[in-house]
This record gives sequence, structure tokens and C-alpha cells, in this order.
Amino acid sequence: MVSNFSDQKIIDSWEKNVEPWVLSVREGEIQSRVLVTNHAIVDVVLAEKPKTVLDIGCGEGWLVRELAAAGVDTLGIDAIPALIASAEKAGGGRFKVLPIEHLSSQTLGETYDALVCNFSLLGKECVDQLFQLAPSLLKEGGSIIVQTVHPSMGGGEGYEDAWREESWVGFNRQFSDPAPWYFRTLESWVALFSRADLKFVSLREPRHPETGFPVSIIFVGMKVSEHVDICR
Amino acid sequence: MVSNFSDQKIIDSWEKNVEPWVLSVREGEIQSRVLVTNHAIVDVVLAEKPKTVLDIGCGEGWLVRELAAAGVDTLGIDAIPALIASAEKAGGGRFKVLPIEHLSSQTLGETYDALVCNFSLLGKECVDQLFQLAPSLLKEGGSIIVQTVHPSMGGGEGYEDAWREESWVGFNRQFSDPAPWYFRTLESWVALFSRADLKFVSLREPRHPETGFPVSIIFVGMKVSEHVDICR
Repeated sequence: MVSNFSDQKIIDSWEKNVEPWVLSVREGEIQSRVLVTNHAIVDVVLAEKPKTVLDIGCGEGWLVRELAAAGVDTLGIDAIPALIASAEKAGGGRFKVLPIEHLSSQTLGETYDALVCNFSLLGKECVDQLFQLAPSLLKEGGSIIVQTVHPSMGGGEGYEDAWREESWVGFNRQFSDPAPWYFRTLESWVALFSRADLKFVSLREPRHPETGFPVSIIFVGMKVSEHVDICR
Repeated sequence: MVSNFSDQKIIDSWEKNVEPWVLSVREGEIQSRVLVTNHAIVDVVLAEKPKTVLDIGCGEGWLVRELAAAGVDTLGIDAIPALIASAEKAGGGRFKVLPIEHLSSQTLGETYDALVCNFSLLGKECVDQLFQLAPSLLKEGGSIIVQTVHPSMGGGEGYEDAWREESWVGFNRQFSDPAPWYFRTLESWVALFSRADLKFVSLREPRHPETGFPVSIIFVGMKVSEHVDICR
């Protein structure tokens, strides 16, 4: 029996919602993505001028296709086989079924100029694991770029790290078996970077063009082995 | 004629409100300070284990007295002569009248393990100046610690860098001629650190014990000349 609030439950639930999700993304039905956050993540990634990118939790693959079209060699990975199947069917990039738990530079046989996680860090332990792994997946000076729900815009559910239930509010299509997600405070997000010895470089707050308030937050960290470059 | 929204207007207005301010602080009349933010800033500063601290915008001097009592050699500076007079009268630390505009390691004749700004970065240009100056005031590995209003808890006034009017709401005493203050988004606060080449180390969100929501934010940055320590 899988707990209602666990990393495994997220996978189980998303496996049941692949079809409405793929259609929601591809038909441009999620307003905040179309208006704000899709452009925002592409801009931040391209500003880092990476040659190679790993898109962690790539879903049906739109960001991989965008980056590949801009000339960036991008691999998309996701834990859900049906999402990767859908990504491969659309083409325009490299894709692989790979849950964070099995992620390593050995499994992948390469390292990257940038890791991107676009609204894909939904879990608890697996996110802690990912940050511990991240430096080993990055080339020296490489970036980790994370877009997620803005912690301060979460509203009235309290302000502490905790599991929450996805409501699927704002989606047109029929979703079932809501996936849980693990809420982190701003303080906790920033601490993930420092615990992993990733230099916290910047923070962006993409804003809704009408309300003027942030609809998401983007963190950029960097792998800096402070000892290397200088003494050679 | 001083503009209603300028660094100079902040000084002018605070000069008229020294007496109610000193009494409000010393009588413990500002609930969020007594319950949350006073302890929070002291804890964060002492956790850095500084031997010497510069308290920038020290006001009537309570934080200087706290740190000095904990064995930290602390100098408090403020632009308002009457606040420094009140601080010196209370004793328990070193104080000096010095606006940020005149601040430099030459003027002070010393550098510090930590700079602390506790709800004192209210202006626009002078805050930009301070961040540019900060590395020259710090010893290698030294910290800059800034507590301020949490940008995301500001409510309905829009979310962009802009001058705002202090309402003095929540104060018991008679304040006059409200001081303006310059609101910065979270993104802008973090950018101040990176523009000044200060390593962004951590971020704290001291929370109200009853509501559970943050009442302030504390940023910690560090002066790291990445080239020095390693190659010796």
C-alpha cells in the first residue's frame, strides 16, 4: 500500500494522468505556462549559454524540443514511461525513461553544462537526492536551474515544509487520483543549494502580465570547485 | 525642496520621530520585534561567530548592546545624530554618527567580520552604494547580514521595486511626517548580493509563532575572494 503522501504516490498518480496532461500542455491549456513560465524557463536556460542540457522530469518533452531547436544538445529524462513514449513520438530531441532514484553520471555516460527542472521537483526524498547528485552530473561551472511554484504565493495553507494535495484547479481536462506534492519554504529551497555545495547565483520571479505578481520562482545555482581554476 | 520619495526624505522624517521611536523600541511596543525578529537577528549574527561587527543604521543601539554583551566588539553607526546621542546615553557599545554616503574603511579605520543591517536598509541609492562598499568593509570570509520586511508578505501594493509610504500602523505612539521606504522584490534583493560579488549564503524566514507565516526575511552573504585562500 503506497502512502498518499510519498514520492511513489506522485509517480503512481501521474501514470494515471498522462493523457490529459499531454493534451493540456500541447494544446496550451495552462494559462500561466503559456503566458509566463514557458518563456521564462527558456530565457533563463539560454542565458546560461549551455551546449548540453539534461531536462530532469521532462514530461511530454516540450522544453527539450525548444532547447534542441535553439541548438542545445538536450536529453530529457522522466520516470513515467508513457510520458517518454509521448515525447519520443513527437521527436525533436533525445529522451530516456529514468527516475531520479536511478540517475547518475554512470547511468547517463555524460555530464552537462546545465540541469533543468521545470515544475518537476514535486517529491521529498527524491529532491534531496537530486541535489546531492547534481554536482556529479555537471561540468565545472555548470548550472542547475529550477522553476517551481513561488513559495510565498501559496496562500493560506500554512508556511512550512509539508506534503500537499494537487487540486488540478485551472485544468480543463479530466484528471483523476490527484498527485501529492511536497511544499518547501523559500528558506528550504535555498538551503538545498547550500547543502549540495552549489553556489546560489540568482533568483527570478516571473510575473503575471495582468496581476504583476510572481506566478513562479526560478533558482539558478552553479557548480564551482573554488580550488581548481585559479591555481593552475 | 526634498522629494517625498528620496533617501534624503527618509532622514528628514526619521529626524522628526526619534523620540517616539526610541520609546517604542525600548518599551518593547513593536510586537513583531519582541516576539520574533530581535531574537532572529541576534541568533543569525552570533551563529557566524564574528569577533567584530559593524551595525549599519543602529538606531538607538539595542542590537549593539546585545552583541557587545555577548562579547562581540560592535560599532553602531547611524545617520541621525539624535539616535546616536540616545544610544551613547544608554551606553554598552561604541557608536558613531555616519550616514551610508560617508561610509568607508578609511573613515572607520577598520574592517569587520560581519556587517549587520537590521530593518535599516530603507533607501534606494544609498542601499545600492552600501552593497558596492560592503566588500571593502569586510575581512576575507566576513558576512553581511540583512534583515528586512519579507517582500512576499507585503500584500496588495503590487510587486515591483518602488517607493512606498510608511504607515506607522501597529505603533502605539504619535509619529509624524511618515518616512518613505523603497520596496524591493526578492529577486532584486538577491541581485544586490550578486552585483556586489558577495556570495549568497543563506536566507531565513523568521515566522510568527501564531500565524506560522514569515514576518521578515534575513539574507546572509559572504565576502569570498575565491583566489586567495587556496593557492597559498
